[in-house]
Amino acid sequence: MAKDKKLVEQITSMEEDFAQWYTDVVLKADLVDYTSVKGCMVIKPAGYAIWELIQSQLDARFKATGVENVYLPMFIPESLLQKEKDHVEGFAPEVAWVTHGGLNPLQERLCVRPTSETLFCDFYANEVESYRDLPKVYNQWCSVVRWEKETRPFLRSREFLWQEGHTAHATAEEAEERTIQMLNVYADFCEQVLAIPVVKGRKTEKEKFAGAEATYTIEALMHDGKALQSGTSHNFGDGFAKAFGIQYTSKDNKLEYVHQTSWGMTTRLIGALIMVHGDNSGLVLPPKVAPTQVMICPIMQKKEGVLEKAFELKGVLSDYRVKVDDSDKNPGWKFAEQEMRGIPLRVEIGPRDIEANKALIVRRDTGEKIEVSLDDINAKVGELLETIQKDMFEKALKHREENTHVADTWEAFTDIIENKQGFIKAMWCEERECEEAIKEETGASTRCMPFAQETLGAVCVHCGKPAKKMVYFGRAY
Amino acid sequence: MAKDKKLVEQITSMEEDFAQWYTDVVLKADLVDYTSVKGCMVIKPAGYAIWELIQSQLDARFKATGVENVYLPMFIPESLLQKEKDHVEGFAPEVAWVTHGGLNPLQERLCVRPTSETLFCDFYANEVESYRDLPKVYNQWCSVVRWEKETRPFLRSREFLWQEGHTAHATAEEAEERTIQMLNVYADFCEQVLAIPVVKGRKTEKEKFAGAEATYTIEALMHDGKALQSGTSHNFGDGFAKAFGIQYTSKDNKLEYVHQTSWGMTTRLIGALIMVHGDNSGLVLPPKVAPTQVMICPIMQKKEGVLEKAFELKGVLSDYRVKVDDSDKNPGWKFAEQEMRGIPLRVEIGPRDIEANKALIVRRDTGEKIEVSLDDINAKVGELLETIQKDMFEKALKHREENTHVADTWEAFTDIIENKQGFIKAMWCEERECEEAIKEETGASTRCMPFAQETLGAVCVHCGKPAKKMVYFGRAY
Repeated sequence: MAKDKKLVEQITSMEEDFAQWYTDVVLKADLVDYTSVKGCMVIKPAGYAIWELIQSQLDARFKATGVENVYLPMFIPESLLQKEKDHVEGFAPEVAWVTHGGLNPLQERLCVRPTSETLFCDFYANEVESYRDLPKVYNQWCSVVRWEKETRPFLRSREFLWQEGHTAHATAEEAEERTIQMLNVYADFCEQVLAIPVVKGRKTEKEKFAGAEATYTIEALMHDGKALQSGTSHNFGDGFAKAFGIQYTSKDNKLEYVHQTSWGMTTRLIGALIMVHGDNSGLVLPPKVAPTQVMICPIMQKKEGVLEKAFELKGVLSDYRVKVDDSDKNPGWKFAEQEMRGIPLRVEIGPRDIEANKALIVRRDTGEKIEVSLDDINAKVGELLETIQKDMFEKALKHREENTHVADTWEAFTDIIENKQGFIKAMWCEERECEEAIKEETGASTRCMPFAQETLGAVCVHCGKPAKKMVYFGRAY
Repeated sequence: MAKDKKLVEQITSMEEDFAQWYTDVVLKADLVDYTSVKGCMVIKPAGYAIWELIQSQLDARFKATGVENVYLPMFIPESLLQKEKDHVEGFAPEVAWVTHGGLNPLQERLCVRPTSETLFCDFYANEVESYRDLPKVYNQWCSVVRWEKETRPFLRSREFLWQEGHTAHATAEEAEERTIQMLNVYADFCEQVLAIPVVKGRKTEKEKFAGAEATYTIEALMHDGKALQSGTSHNFGDGFAKAFGIQYTSKDNKLEYVHQTSWGMTTRLIGALIMVHGDNSGLVLPPKVAPTQVMICPIMQKKEGVLEKAFELKGVLSDYRVKVDDSDKNPGWKFAEQEMRGIPLRVEIGPRDIEANKALIVRRDTGEKIEVSLDDINAKVGELLETIQKDMFEKALKHREENTHVADTWEAFTDIIENKQGFIKAMWCEERECEEAIKEETGASTRCMPFAQETLGAVCVHCGKPAKKMVYFGRAY
C-alpha cells in the first residue's frame, strides 16, 4: 500500500494551498500537460474525453433550439478587426499576429482569432439580403488565441477551445430573446449536466464585452470562495451591423440593419468542474461528464474465474461507460488512481464476492460502500449514478448558499472580505467610479446584477448614494 | 417553372468545364463561401453538417481500434520544427509565422501548425519512460494551415480541417501494423460510408511524406478522370524518435527508441464526394453522409390537410434524417434546390396522394420515381436508402474500372494520356529520374504502388530497364 499513499501524498491539500491543489489535480488526474509553447497546454485523453462529453451534450441542446454549425477562418485581417471601435480596443492588445506566409511577408497582418464577431459580420454582410434570410443562428466549435501574460491550465491559457454562437435577427426584440434563451441553455447545462449551480444576471457597463450593448453571464462559486464566470451571452444591438453594413430588405421593402448576438462557453468549464467538485483525493466527476462512469476492480485477479467474472460484469453494465482495471497494480493503488481521476463508481469483485453472488460498490463523492447482489447490479448502478448527479448539485448549492453573504453596510462588506469567503450581495449606485473603488479597495469585482433582484437597502453599500441595483460581488478567476 | 430552370442553368455542365462545374456546385449547394481572408473559406451549414457526419463515423471507427483523442497547441516554436531535417525542409516553405504576441515581438517565431509531428514528439518525449507507457495511440481533430498559392474550396485551401493520428510503439513491427490498420480503416470508411472505391498502396520515395520511412495512401478516381489522394498513413520508423530523444526502458531494462506512425484525413473528402458522385443537377450525397436523407415536399400545400399530413409523415420517418420543405417556393423550385443539395430521397405528397393513401418517392441518384403506400413507407425508405448507398458505390466502381487502363508500352501510355482519361497501370524500374521524366512529359504522377501487384511485363514502361513495381499513374488534384 506504499505506492497508493504516494499518489495521494503528491497532492497538496486544498486547505493548505488551493492554487497548488488545483495544479496538482490537473496533472495527477492526467488532464493536461505543459508544452514547449509557453502558455499553451496539451489536453490529454482524460481531459479531452470530458470536453467531448461537454461538447456533445451542449451541441445537442443548441441544435434543439435551431442552431446550425459552421466553420470560419482562424485568421482576421487587421483592417477587419478595426471596423468596430470598442471591439478592436478590447482585443488588439492581446492578439497574436501572423506577419509572414511561407517565405514572404504578408501585405496585411492577420491576427489569429481571439473571437470571431468581425468574421461573422463580414460573412453576414454577404449572406443577408432579405428578411427571408433571417434569422441566422450559427455556431462554431474551434480554438481561439489570447496572448495572456499569466496562464493556468483550463482557467486562462493562450489558446483554448470553445464554441462561439453568432446570430443575426430582423428585430431588436428577437435578438434580446435569443440572448436570454442561450443564457438559459447555458445555465440549464451547468446545473443539469455539470452539477454546478449558477447565478444568472447582467454584467455592468464596465464588465460587459467589447462592442456589446448588454452582456449576460452565469457565475459559479468555486470551493475556495472565488467566482468563475462560466458562460456569457451578448446582445450587440445593431452596433456591429452598422459598422459592417449588414442590412436586409424588410417585408415592406425598407432597408434595415440586423440585430446580433453572440454567446460562448470554453474549456474553462473543466476548471470549474475541478474547483467545484474536487477534494483532497483528486477529481470528482458528475456522472454525465465522466468518461468512465464505473470502474470494475477485480480483487485477487489472478485467482481462477475472477477476471472472467469482471469482464462478464462489464457486459452486464454496458448501458454505462464502464471499464475493467485489469492492470497488474495492487488494489490500493488502483483505488487511489481511480479516485484521483474522479470516476463516480468503483465496483470491487473478488473470489468471495463471486461465491456469494455479490459485489461491493463504492461512491466517489461520499466514499459510501454498498453491497449489492449481482442480480440487481445493473439497476442499482443506474440508480446510484442518478443519485450522485443530484447529490453533487445539492452539495455545491449548499456550499454556495453558505458562502453567499449580504452586506448592508461598508463595514459589513469589508468584514466579509477579510474574514469570510464567497459571494457578497449588496446594493449599488450603478456608478462606475464606485465599482472601481470597491475593486481597488477589496479586490472584489461586480460579478453580475442578478435577474432575481432583491431590495437589501436604499443606498449604495460603498458611497451611500441612492441604490439602483442589487449586485453580486466577489473575487474572481 | 422559370425559377427552377434558373437555378440549374446557373451550373456549368461538367462536360463543358469540369473545374467551373465544381465551383458552381460548391457555391450553389451552399457548402462554402469565400471570405476576406485570401485562400480561406467559410464552411456553411450544409457543408459543415457533412463534415460532422464524416467526423462522427470516422471517430467511432478510430475508437473501436483503441484510439484516444487529445488536443495539442496550434503553435510550433521554430526550433522545434527544425529538429527533424527532412520534415522542416518539407514544411518550412509553406507555413504561416506568428511574430508578435499582443504589442510585443516574440523572442522566437511560432509557426501555425501545418501538421503536428513535432509537437507530438515533444509531448511523447516527456510522457514515455517505460514499455508500460506504450503504445500511445492518440488523435486530434483540428485545423491546420499551409500557405498555398493556388487554392480551391475543400481541395486546397490555406486552412483546412482534419484529423491527425500520432502513435508511438515499442517495436517496428507494431508500428507497421498500426500504419496498415489505419489505412484499412480509411479505405473501409471511404467505401462503406462515402461510397467511394479506393486503391490501396504505397507511395514512391519521391512522393512520400517529409520525414517518413514509408507512406501508404488510398487513391480515388474523380469523375473527370483525375486522381485524388484521399487519406495517408505514414510509418516513421525511429527517425523522429532519434531526433526528439523519445526513448523507453524495455522489459529487459534496455533503453530503446520508440517507433512512430501518423495518419490523416481532411475536409478534402467533401471535394471527393462532389467530384465522384455529383452530376449536372448538383450534388449527390450517399445516404450515410447526407445531413438530410429525406425531404418531404407537400404539393398544393395550402389545401387543407396537406401540411398536416406532411408533418405526420415526418414523424413516421423519424428513424431517418428527415425534413419537410414547407417554404412558400413553388414545387419545381423546391425540387431543383433539393437536387442541388444532393438530398437522397424526395417524398412528394399532395391532396390526391392523401386520398389514395400513397406518396411518390424520387431517387436523387437515378431520378427513378416509386409510388408507395403510406402504410409501407417507413420500410420502403429504409430499403431505398440502403440501395442508393450500394448503387452509388457500384456506379463509382464501374466508372473507375472503365477508366483504368493498362499501358505496356510508352506509346500506349502517351496514347492513353492524349485520348483517354483515368488511371494508368504500368510497370516501373523504381528509379526517381524515370518517375520525374514521366511526370515532366505527361503530367501524370505516380499515385501509388498498389498492394495488389500484377506483372504486366518485364520492363519499365518508360526506360525499358528491368521493371520492379507495378504502379498506378494519373493526373491528380
